[in-house]
Amino acid sequence: LFLLPQQGSGASLGPAAPTPLTGFGLAFEDQRGARIPQRPEQTFPGSYKLWNPGTNHPQRSPYLSTRGNDINSKRGFSQEGFANYAANKYDEEKNPSGIINLGVSENKLCFDLLSNRVSIALGFPFFLSRSASKLFRSVPLIWVERMLRVARLGVDDVFSPPASEAFLIPTPFYGGISDDVYYYGNVQLVYAHLDSKVRTGTNTRPFQLTVEKLEMALWKARREGVSVRGLILINPHNPLGDIYSPAELLEYLEFAKRYQLHVIMDELYMLTVFDESVTFHSVLSIDKLPDPQRTHVVWGTSKDFGISGIRFGALYTENKDVSSAVTNLCYFHGISGITQYQMAQLLSDHDWIDQVYLPTNRLRLKAAHTYVTDELKTLGIPFLNRNSGLYVWIDLRKYLRRGTFEEELLLWCRFLRHKVLLSNGKSFQCFEPGWFRIIFTDKMHRLQLGEQGQLLSPFVT
Amino acid sequence: LFLLPQQGSGASLGPAAPTPLTGFGLAFEDQRGARIPQRPEQTFPGSYKLWNPGTNHPQRSPYLSTRGNDINSKRGFSQEGFANYAANKYDEEKNPSGIINLGVSENKLCFDLLSNRVSIALGFPFFLSRSASKLFRSVPLIWVERMLRVARLGVDDVFSPPASEAFLIPTPFYGGISDDVYYYGNVQLVYAHLDSKVRTGTNTRPFQLTVEKLEMALWKARREGVSVRGLILINPHNPLGDIYSPAELLEYLEFAKRYQLHVIMDELYMLTVFDESVTFHSVLSIDKLPDPQRTHVVWGTSKDFGISGIRFGALYTENKDVSSAVTNLCYFHGISGITQYQMAQLLSDHDWIDQVYLPTNRLRLKAAHTYVTDELKTLGIPFLNRNSGLYVWIDLRKYLRRGTFEEELLLWCRFLRHKVLLSNGKSFQCFEPGWFRIIFTDKMHRLQLGEQGQLLSPFVT
Repeated sequence: LFLLPQQGSGASLGPAAPTPLTGFGLAFEDQRGARIPQRPEQTFPGSYKLWNPGTNHPQRSPYLSTRGNDINSKRGFSQEGFANYAANKYDEEKNPSGIINLGVSENKLCFDLLSNRVSIALGFPFFLSRSASKLFRSVPLIWVERMLRVARLGVDDVFSPPASEAFLIPTPFYGGISDDVYYYGNVQLVYAHLDSKVRTGTNTRPFQLTVEKLEMALWKARREGVSVRGLILINPHNPLGDIYSPAELLEYLEFAKRYQLHVIMDELYMLTVFDESVTFHSVLSIDKLPDPQRTHVVWGTSKDFGISGIRFGALYTENKDVSSAVTNLCYFHGISGITQYQMAQLLSDHDWIDQVYLPTNRLRLKAAHTYVTDELKTLGIPFLNRNSGLYVWIDLRKYLRRGTFEEELLLWCRFLRHKVLLSNGKSFQCFEPGWFRIIFTDKMHRLQLGEQGQLLSPFVT
Repeated sequence: LFLLPQQGSGASLGPAAPTPLTGFGLAFEDQRGARIPQRPEQTFPGSYKLWNPGTNHPQRSPYLSTRGNDINSKRGFSQEGFANYAANKYDEEKNPSGIINLGVSENKLCFDLLSNRVSIALGFPFFLSRSASKLFRSVPLIWVERMLRVARLGVDDVFSPPASEAFLIPTPFYGGISDDVYYYGNVQLVYAHLDSKVRTGTNTRPFQLTVEKLEMALWKARREGVSVRGLILINPHNPLGDIYSPAELLEYLEFAKRYQLHVIMDELYMLTVFDESVTFHSVLSIDKLPDPQRTHVVWGTSKDFGISGIRFGALYTENKDVSSAVTNLCYFHGISGITQYQMAQLLSDHDWIDQVYLPTNRLRLKAAHTYVTDELKTLGIPFLNRNSGLYVWIDLRKYLRRGTFEEELLLWCRFLRHKVLLSNGKSFQCFEPGWFRIIFTDKMHRLQLGEQGQLLSPFVT
C-alpha cells in the first residue's frame, strides 16, 4: 500500500526541510538513466502497478472486499503527484522551495472577483430543511457534476459481466473520467486513440477527432464481444483545448444515433473560450438534435467560475426516464442548502456574469495563455495552440530517450523532483508517449518556464 | 411509471384548491373497504408493486439499463407520501387545509437557535479551492453520511451474484437504509425480525433486540446460501427509540466478532436523548472493542442539529483500509468548502453546544414528546415510551380490520386523505402490520392529535 505523507492538510512545512519525494519519485532522484528495479514493489510499495498494471498486485487488505481493495489500490500519477504537492506546497514567503502546481486544473486568475460575490451573508430558510435541497429539482438543471457519467445509461443488462459493456471515448481525455465510470458505474471504457500525426483528407490537425476513428474503435470492440452503449465527448476538450464546430458536432451525433449510443457531452469548460474570434457551440444550441432522447449535457461551476471547492454541477437531459433515475441517485449527492442558495445568487446575476466576470476572465486567460505559449516558443517546445481551457497540451517527446511510457514517467518524476507538478499523457490515456498538460491559470511569476524562471529550463534546454 | 404532481418545488398552492391525492391514494378516497383492483397498474400506474412486489412491473424505459429502470421504479410509501405533502403543504395562513407532515424526521424545535449560528458571513479561502474540500480528511472524522453503508465492506467477491452477499439488520429500521445499500452497494439485506410480543427470560420489552434473534436470522440466511458479511445497528434506534446499554452493545459486538461481521453503527440520533436519567453510550466509548477493525460509526448533523439541508456527515473507523477506500469514493461526495467552513465553526464551539444548544434542545424535545404521548394516552393509542429521537412508534393495530399490510396501507392512505402524513411500519420492514412512526418535533399546535385537534381523532376514535 502507499506510504503517503500524512502531514496535516497540506499546510506549509516551512522553508528549510528538504522533504524527499515519496513513493516511486524517490527512485529516480539521481538516476536519470535508472532502470526499473527488479522488485520495485518492495522499494516503492504499491506503485509498481503503474508501470505494469495487472501483472502484480499490492498487498490486499483482509478487511476489504475485492471491490474495496480495487478502489483502494487505484491511485495513478495524478493522485501521487498531488500527494507530493500537498506535502510541500510552494509559497512565495513560507516555502519558496516548494512544489509549483501546474498539474491541477484550477483557475486562480479571478479569485478577486469571485471572493466578493460568494462570501455574502446567508439567507436563513435555505439551510435548515432537507426539502430545500430539492430547490434545483424543479428546474431543468438538476444536480450532478459527474452523476451522468456514472449512471450507467443504456446498459441494458446489469447482470452480464461488466467487461461486456462500455462507453466509447476518444483519447487523450481528462483522466478523472476513468474513476467516474469505474467506482459506481462499473462501465468499461473503449478508447478511440487520437494521435499527433496530420494526414490528408479530413484529418488536418493533430489529435483530430473523426467519425472514422470512432467507428473503427466501435467495431474493434464489437469484434471482441464488447457492447458499446454510450459515447463520451468533452467540448471544449480537456486536455487538447479543441472546440468542436457545429458541423463536427453533428457528425459525431449522427454517428451516435446510427449505433443508438447515448452521448454524454461534458461541457465543463464552456465559458473558458478566450479568443473572441472563436465561438463555442453547446450541443444544446443545435436546432434539431439527431437523437435528443440520448443526448445529455454535464456542466458545473468548478472550471468556468474557478470555484472547484463548491462542488456544484448539473445534468441537462430531455429524457424524463434518465432524469428520474438520476434524481433518485441524487439522494446520495445532495448539495447543501447554503451552497444552493449562494449558487442561485451567483448564477442569476446575468449582468455581472456577462459584463464583469466573463470579459475579465477571458482577458486574463488570454494574457496568461499568451505568456506561457511565448515561453514555450522560446524554449522550442511544440504545443497545441488552442483557444480554450486552463491548460496547454505540450509535446516533450524530444526529451525522451526512447518513445516509451517508462521514459515519460521518468521525465514526469524529474519535473516533480525539480518542484514542478505536471500531468503526463499516460494519465489521460494518451497513446503517444511524451505529451504533457501544463496549467497556465496561475500568477505570472509562477509561470516563468524558461531561462528567467526555474521551471522547465533545467532539463529541457 | 409514476404520475407524480410536478407543481414546482412544493410551494404553497393557495388555500382553496381541493387537490386530490395522487397515485394509489385516490383509490381509497371513499372506499374504506375497497379491494385491490384486478389491473391496478392501469388505474394507479407504477404503484402496484408496492403491494405485490415482483409480480408485476411498471412500464420499462427503453432508454434505461436494467439498473436504471430498477432505480426509477423504486419508489415506496415515503416517497409517495412526501410527493403528496410537497404538493399540498400545510401552512397556518396560506394553506390551512394542507397536509401536516408527521412523517419526515426533521427537528423543527430549535430553528431559532441554529439560524443565528449558521448564517454568519463566510470566510474567504475556504470555498475556492478543491484542496479545501480535503480539510476534514486530515482528522479522524472523514466525510460521509451514508457512504459506509454503501461501501460494500467485507464483501469478498464482487463477481459472485449480488444475492449471495448481505448485511444483517434488525427490523423495523429506518427505511432509507434499503436504498442506501441497494443503489450503489448492491448488497442484500437479511432481516432479523423483532416483534412486539414480550416473552420471558431476556426478552422483556417489545421489539427487543437479542443475540438469539440475530443468530437465528444469520443461520437461516446461511442455509439459503446467503453470505452475511456485516451487521447494521441503529443506536439510538430509529424508529423504536431504543437506546442500547453498554452490556447489550457488547453482546451484539461479541456476536459480530464470532462471525467476523463488520458492524456499521448508525449513531445519527446520538444527541437526541432527552431524558437526563438515561445515558447514551456510543460504541466508541467502549473501552475494549471486541473487533475494533470491523467496528465503524456513522454520524451526521442532520438529526442532532436539525439541519438536514446541510448534508454533512462523517464516518469514524480505525480501519485504515476502510478509511482509505471510502476516501477514494468521497471524490463523488465532496462537501462544499462553504459548508465545511460553517460546520467547522459550528462544531468547534463546544461552549455553545454544551451550555446552550443541547440543554435547550433536550428540554424542547422532552416537552414535545410529553405533549404528544399524553395525547396518545388520551386517545388510548399504545406506543413505545422511549427517551430519544424525534419520533414515537405507535400501535394502531386495533384500527385494522384484519392484520394485513393491505389494511395498514388503507389506514395510511386514510391519514393522508385527512391531511396527515405518517410513516407506516411496512416502509420500515416491520414484520407486524399496524405500527406507525409519528414525528413530534414540530410546533405544538400542529401536534394536537386528539379531540382538540383534527389529526388522529377523526378515524381512530
